[in-house]
Amino acid sequence: MKKYVSEFLGTFAMIFCGTGAMTINEITGGSISHVGVAITWGLIVMAMIYAFGEISGAHFNPAVTVAFAYAKKFSWSEVPKFITAQFLGAIAASGILFILFPASEFYGATLPSFEAWRAFILEFLLTFFLMLTIINVSTGSKEVGIMAGIAIGGVVLLEAMFAGPMTKASMNPIRSLAPAIISGHYKDIWLYLTAPFLGAILAVSTCKFIKDDNCCTTNC
Amino acid sequence: MKKYVSEFLGTFAMIFCGTGAMTINEITGGSISHVGVAITWGLIVMAMIYAFGEISGAHFNPAVTVAFAYAKKFSWSEVPKFITAQFLGAIAASGILFILFPASEFYGATLPSFEAWRAFILEFLLTFFLMLTIINVSTGSKEVGIMAGIAIGGVVLLEAMFAGPMTKASMNPIRSLAPAIISGHYKDIWLYLTAPFLGAILAVSTCKFIKDDNCCTTNC
Amino acid sequence: MKKYVSEFLGTFAMIFCGTGAMTINEITGGSISHVGVAITWGLIVMAMIYAFGEISGAHFNPAVTVAFAYAKKFSWSEVPKFITAQFLGAIAASGILFILFPASEFYGATLPSFEAWRAFILEFLLTFFLMLTIINVSTGSKEVGIMAGIAIGGVVLLEAMFAGPMTKASMNPIRSLAPAIISGHYKDIWLYLTAPFLGAILAVSTCKFIKDDNCCTTNC
Amino acid sequence: MKKYVSEFLGTFAMIFCGTGAMTINEITGGSISHVGVAITWGLIVMAMIYAFGEISGAHFNPAVTVAFAYAKKFSWSEVPKFITAQFLGAIAASGILFILFPASEFYGATLPSFEAWRAFILEFLLTFFLMLTIINVSTGSKEVGIMAGIAIGGVVLLEAMFAGPMTKASMNPIRSLAPAIISGHYKDIWLYLTAPFLGAILAVSTCKFIKDDNCCTTNC
Repeated sequence: MKKYVSEFLGTFAMIFCGTGAMTINEITGGSISHVGVAITWGLIVMAMIYAFGEISGAHFNPAVTVAFAYAKKFSWSEVPKFITAQFLGAIAASGILFILFPASEFYGATLPSFEAWRAFILEFLLTFFLMLTIINVSTGSKEVGIMAGIAIGGVVLLEAMFAGPMTKASMNPIRSLAPAIISGHYKDIWLYLTAPFLGAILAVSTCKFIKDDNCCTTNC
Repeated sequence: MKKYVSEFLGTFAMIFCGTGAMTINEITGGSISHVGVAITWGLIVMAMIYAFGEISGAHFNPAVTVAFAYAKKFSWSEVPKFITAQFLGAIAASGILFILFPASEFYGATLPSFEAWRAFILEFLLTFFLMLTIINVSTGSKEVGIMAGIAIGGVVLLEAMFAGPMTKASMNPIRSLAPAIISGHYKDIWLYLTAPFLGAILAVSTCKFIKDDNCCTTNC
Repeated sequence: MKKYVSEFLGTFAMIFCGTGAMTINEITGGSISHVGVAITWGLIVMAMIYAFGEISGAHFNPAVTVAFAYAKKFSWSEVPKFITAQFLGAIAASGILFILFPASEFYGATLPSFEAWRAFILEFLLTFFLMLTIINVSTGSKEVGIMAGIAIGGVVLLEAMFAGPMTKASMNPIRSLAPAIISGHYKDIWLYLTAPFLGAILAVSTCKFIKDDNCCTTNC
Repeated sequence: MKKYVSEFLGTFAMIFCGTGAMTINEITGGSISHVGVAITWGLIVMAMIYAFGEISGAHFNPAVTVAFAYAKKFSWSEVPKFITAQFLGAIAASGILFILFPASEFYGATLPSFEAWRAFILEFLLTFFLMLTIINVSTGSKEVGIMAGIAIGGVVLLEAMFAGPMTKASMNPIRSLAPAIISGHYKDIWLYLTAPFLGAILAVSTCKFIKDDNCCTTNC
């Protein structure tokens, strides 16, 4: 039970702060700026990893949960429970933003600003880089493990920074779904529900070419 | 005595730099920018945690002090002394800013830019996320403890970034009270004197659902 | 083989995100901003060091590879293989950016905005500072080693920040070559193919004046 | 000898990058931005601490050197040698910037933008906060010691951010003197040559109220 509450709270905080930054930036005419939105995303992920990493693993993302199960580092039977907790956390965050900021139209929804196939490739690569970092630091030495939150939060920050103008740098199906439901903006939602899973799974497969096999796909 | 001097100095530095950034930004027509103000808040909290954390615990915030007492990790009899030291540090900082920058009108006062009930909910949630991070990293492993300053400073930075345009992201009754006294701007001050306490206490209560009970409410 | 895949992937991620930030900033009329581009460069280097540092050493840069060989910390026979892996990673990244963003003209190419001899001196010094940091933290205590990614990523971030407007702060022959090939902009490319090697080698030589000789030029 | 080369190189890199950012920002009409300049200052200090901290202590600042001698943590007989190395590093950096960027007028000189007595108080407080952080983290636990570069670099970054528009946030006599000599702008230079020493010494004295006396004024 502790794990599910942890995933709920971490995802709630992440979606509230991240899409909250986008929502407040929208309704105040850009007072936070694109740079500020990206910094918000990166730091909330970093902080939640240090807060909850030792309890639930701090996934906050169905693509990460599925990839860890694919890597045999997480039980498949836990996957639906984790994704449910993540979804409830995300929808609660979007719901409170809806109450607090009725003037917003998007609530941080991820609408790509170029063709869907290009957005699909970009989200695929973004999640690939994210999961490549996650799987490597989580199977590295204890010293690298200390820096996991900084490394992973750093990837989220930089990807939100450079890819935000094109796809909003979702890398997370739940993170796209909750604002879509609340705002009613579902355009191209399919790509955000598929590309992250593929990118994260490819990262785990790639890991075998870098580390000893039993390190990426079991415990080492 | 060392603890109280530590709380005085840390709160003094935090309020001087944080509200100093807002004051200088105000009188120079935005030369620091909103992003720069948020970065200032986060980094001074981080630095003061590393400077004073091992002496006083680096609260710098009555809501944090009360929440730690509620968690039985801090003596209730110490609470008034800590809050007094924090108040003196904050008022000294605001007073020096008043002398240095007479052209300022606000001195970093926290006036919400939307309805008070919405501001109340937002400050409640901001402090909830902050204290959730504090209580979890302070009861985590030694490795997580090393990163405490970065994680907590990171939360302050990101919350100042995304919520600053709405409520100034106070999360701290003393941080709102000192500039209010110096500037004479008391509008909606009640919410900044109440919401942070409630949010911080809820975070401690929530901790019981994540960690073993004796970890959140006593020493573990 | 694991080392070469690691260098390929790390360089691919670094060039894709870093020059991707410049490409998206170009085609969207500055939506990311110069500050955002510099942050992207620094954080992707930091993240890739934590992801791959324990496998290949996380060079991602022929100048760094050659300097480590000059320092006798890396086999000369490995140098061509590492540089090949780095080149393939960089050209793959630039190639995918070419497909995703056909509207771009530069793809992050490094064209200096002042005289070539000044740009040469600046790139020489930038790489000198970078390699000075790399060689010192990689031969320091275990505690400093934990912070290597932050220190080195920090240097890349700050150098991209302050020198970006003049030379794009390449510090890396491969990082300049791949976008040049894809974009066809080869102006002053010679300086980016020479100055980084000289700066990095001088840093190793300088190290002897700071640390015990056998620490900089063999293992210590 | 290694210590002096270390102080020379670290101060050279710090002044070259920090005042270089201000110089390039000046001649390019603000391309780096105030936020970018502050980030450059903070990160070069952080990186140089991790690169040279274990060799010379990474002072790079006569006020820090004198304060450490006052704290009996550094030999008074070494003080002139350290300050000479720091001065040579700073003047070399300013000299190269003079050659590279002849169009600049200020080369990062620190001219206050309000009355000198206010600037004196502000520089005094800025150096007080900086040295308070330095003396506390350098006498803290081993875990805090790992984070010293981040904490101290963070203070430099945030102080450059919020106080930069008023005094350029020097905190360092050498950092003000070298650009003054190269640019010929000596206005109010006296305050930058005095306030930092007083602020740094007060921080050491204050430390006695926080830590056990023999921790601040001898080794502990």
